[in-house]
Amino acid sequence: MEHTIPVERLTAPWERMTNENVLLRFVDTLLRGCGQVMFQNNPLTGLLFLIGIFVNSALLGLAGVIGLVVSTLTAMVLKADNNAIRAGLFGFNGILTGIGLAFFLKWNPTLPVYIILAGILSSIVMMSLVNVLGSRDVPALTAPFVLSAWIFLFAVFLFSHLQSTQAIQPALLKPSAAVQTALRPLPTSLVGAGITPLNLVEAFFRGIGEVFFQDNLLTGLIFLVAILVNSRISALFAALGSLVGMLTSLFLLGGDGHWVYHGLYGFNAVLSAIAVGGVFYVLTWPSAIYALFCALIATVLMASISVFLSPLGMPALTAPFVVSAWLFILPRNGFLALRSVTLGEVTNPERIRRAYREQALAH
Amino acid sequence: MEHTIPVERLTAPWERMTNENVLLRFVDTLLRGCGQVMFQNNPLTGLLFLIGIFVNSALLGLAGVIGLVVSTLTAMVLKADNNAIRAGLFGFNGILTGIGLAFFLKWNPTLPVYIILAGILSSIVMMSLVNVLGSRDVPALTAPFVLSAWIFLFAVFLFSHLQSTQAIQPALLKPSAAVQTALRPLPTSLVGAGITPLNLVEAFFRGIGEVFFQDNLLTGLIFLVAILVNSRISALFAALGSLVGMLTSLFLLGGDGHWVYHGLYGFNAVLSAIAVGGVFYVLTWPSAIYALFCALIATVLMASISVFLSPLGMPALTAPFVVSAWLFILPRNGFLALRSVTLGEVTNPERIRRAYREQALAH
Amino acid sequence: MEHTIPVERLTAPWERMTNENVLLRFVDTLLRGCGQVMFQNNPLTGLLFLIGIFVNSALLGLAGVIGLVVSTLTAMVLKADNNAIRAGLFGFNGILTGIGLAFFLKWNPTLPVYIILAGILSSIVMMSLVNVLGSRDVPALTAPFVLSAWIFLFAVFLFSHLQSTQAIQPALLKPSAAVQTALRPLPTSLVGAGITPLNLVEAFFRGIGEVFFQDNLLTGLIFLVAILVNSRISALFAALGSLVGMLTSLFLLGGDGHWVYHGLYGFNAVLSAIAVGGVFYVLTWPSAIYALFCALIATVLMASISVFLSPLGMPALTAPFVVSAWLFILPRNGFLALRSVTLGEVTNPERIRRAYREQALAH
Repeated sequence: MEHTIPVERLTAPWERMTNENVLLRFVDTLLRGCGQVMFQNNPLTGLLFLIGIFVNSALLGLAGVIGLVVSTLTAMVLKADNNAIRAGLFGFNGILTGIGLAFFLKWNPTLPVYIILAGILSSIVMMSLVNVLGSRDVPALTAPFVLSAWIFLFAVFLFSHLQSTQAIQPALLKPSAAVQTALRPLPTSLVGAGITPLNLVEAFFRGIGEVFFQDNLLTGLIFLVAILVNSRISALFAALGSLVGMLTSLFLLGGDGHWVYHGLYGFNAVLSAIAVGGVFYVLTWPSAIYALFCALIATVLMASISVFLSPLGMPALTAPFVVSAWLFILPRNGFLALRSVTLGEVTNPERIRRAYREQALAH
Repeated sequence: MEHTIPVERLTAPWERMTNENVLLRFVDTLLRGCGQVMFQNNPLTGLLFLIGIFVNSALLGLAGVIGLVVSTLTAMVLKADNNAIRAGLFGFNGILTGIGLAFFLKWNPTLPVYIILAGILSSIVMMSLVNVLGSRDVPALTAPFVLSAWIFLFAVFLFSHLQSTQAIQPALLKPSAAVQTALRPLPTSLVGAGITPLNLVEAFFRGIGEVFFQDNLLTGLIFLVAILVNSRISALFAALGSLVGMLTSLFLLGGDGHWVYHGLYGFNAVLSAIAVGGVFYVLTWPSAIYALFCALIATVLMASISVFLSPLGMPALTAPFVVSAWLFILPRNGFLALRSVTLGEVTNPERIRRAYREQALAH
Repeated sequence: MEHTIPVERLTAPWERMTNENVLLRFVDTLLRGCGQVMFQNNPLTGLLFLIGIFVNSALLGLAGVIGLVVSTLTAMVLKADNNAIRAGLFGFNGILTGIGLAFFLKWNPTLPVYIILAGILSSIVMMSLVNVLGSRDVPALTAPFVLSAWIFLFAVFLFSHLQSTQAIQPALLKPSAAVQTALRPLPTSLVGAGITPLNLVEAFFRGIGEVFFQDNLLTGLIFLVAILVNSRISALFAALGSLVGMLTSLFLLGGDGHWVYHGLYGFNAVLSAIAVGGVFYVLTWPSAIYALFCALIATVLMASISVFLSPLGMPALTAPFVVSAWLFILPRNGFLALRSVTLGEVTNPERIRRAYREQALAH
């Protein structure tokens, strides 16, 4: 496919360098781990993701890099499969775990230790899930991040050496409480509220940025470009996923407009749309619609899981994505209208589609 | 077996008609889906179930039919296995999802859309669970309904376009709070309370009716007749299950008498008793006792899961049945005192028993 | 290995007697069931565990024996695999279930019935998990106890015939609430508080005693001797596990000093350290470190799961051990730095290590 040539021209010299230098190979592994958060096994995508994060917050970026390095090193020390390590499959949960803990906990001398411990755990959980799910051709997705981060976040109520930020607020549920649906940047004020083009654009890009907890328009835009570098199909579904999350919560179901503005109904839908739209199913019209319905379910699950955790005040993280994507990936070839992709065949959506077409022609 | 002949005489012409007419075949599929809620792959049983529901509430019946149609169509559009669709295996979760959402949420323009989305999801979850559990010969039971309905019910706290009914009441748990055990129709009054024959009969039949959320003596009676049309063994265990649920909660453990009266300790025990008593194990004396103990555990689980969900005010639905039946079906042939039935062999309890006896004679 | 000879001299005559007498064989089965709580398939270890329990509380001991007998008899009546029964694999969850219910519920005429029902359930859950996990060479651990006890404990809020003790206190979570970290015996007083040698010794041994809910220094000491009778490696890791739990919670994370004193951060770490340190992985330097990290994660999980259950006021039981050990056992040979042990090869750590070395020499 023509569109991949410019990127390959850019990355070819880098690939040669990584073959010769151990340190550069390790950097390449880290960057791929960063890219794998959105299923892009591409160091350039990973680098752009990192830039997008640091544009918004150097502190969150630092926490992410700690988690990324620790989780990758853990897999290397314990001698996991080298191809999996090189593809960044032990890094993507680590970077999310690092950012997640730094987002919900206050910085103090214990926090870096906590991030390191959780980062190590994320790679052990990853290997557990690879063993449990791999034989069924089901990917672990970001479940190792969700589990590791939840384990360490829940515990902080009982540990005095760690303090949660304002983002963690246990609350009693009240069925009669009104949900404030006006699309707006501030939680309690209506300044700047309304279905304006600017507000919709903010919501759209922040939905992509929030995949890495980055509540920032520019970061969301950089992320979208980063995906585009590796796959036009994934970039399209990232955008469609953010749209589905935004439109479903805003117009169909009437979610909190403050959440919508900050992309909180978007990021899980983004991930579900990318995963089901072209990565774990060959992209066809039926699988495209199936992927967008999965993004819609991820949006509903964002509310469900948040409600479930509200007595603890804990965040849903990317659990809505993991649950919805598992539910939509598990049927595999049980639905003959869809053509599923085995884990060994997963590359990027364009190549998967091409391989499938060539195979179909050969018959 | 002689008792099946009259029913077969009734259904034989219908079967011929369904072979010739696409629309009648679809209606037959829907009716079987309705019957499968209690493991009865029989359109007449399904029709009587529907009548029983409409006798109590046309609105709940309508919601159920929407869910039934949507979930069945989803499986057809996605091209699931045709035999499974025809046996009603994609409809039974859909009808329960429809009724469940309409029972716990107020009717408004968004509710039908919500039911349709949840109905589609229920068939996708069904296929997921069939893939996960099928290789172990473990049935999905009503887990797709429970998961789909929970996902959509939990979310309503955060969606202004949907409102919950009075049945959803988040509450703080108090260990010292007294449980009011008098058997009675009204929650706070003692009018008509006491262990009277009428109250016991009410509790018994409502326990069967509540399988479909139908809090109605007559509906429970119609349901029992509906099961009897297809299987005397299943009807017996439905009745025994309701008895176990009622007697355990009322006399042994001291449950809320208002819950007992309205069959809330009965319906999960009914389903567990039918499933373990003759469907997934060959009916013998040991498996009969095992089934009744499973019904007792379902009764305890009704309390456990309700307590677990009480901070959210969310209903246990048929999760107590799913959990107890899975725990009792999973041992399979690990207990040599029991003879388990593979999923491919599951028909109705009488035929399973006959096939097992013939096989035993042949050896 | 020389150290096992004295023990074998002690147990050899007993083994002969159990071969000849049905009743003694049953007693032997019960004692092995008791020993299996800490992975020691040894009747003498089990006897010493029982003595340790009765030293602290005859009533808890009685409840444990009821659970032990009932769960073992259930497996015999249902005809589970005889070798598994004889190895005590159906007893260890029963004894924990009995003690657990008696610890958190008040004695009354219904409690023994409740313990019997939960004890029966524990053996059915055990067989379920053996079927689900066994094919992956993953042990059920104490999950059948945790599930059975939770099912019966959660339910008591809704059953008037059972009352919970003061140990069950539902509470709202407050992120700002201060955690009192001083190491001390009494919850609200600072009498005797501080990092004193006596307090540390108390915490260390109570951490081992709490595996069976025994909050007692002497009992913890007897337990350690009981393990030593069967395996020096397991005794070492029990001690290391208790240390990891105590030191991590006390110094690294700042847990409640009252919890630390009473061993509540110790017992899950003890079990995780024994399981991963020499039982399910061959003991090597890498697996030793891996086991201690697993014990640390069990300590964090004690806080996480307690927080998760705090709106219900329910105890974490040994769920922190089960979750952490599963996460660390599931990677199996996915990490080439570790050498996992299949379920069929599990004996005691010394024998596993010797067999592995002989195998390595043969190559």
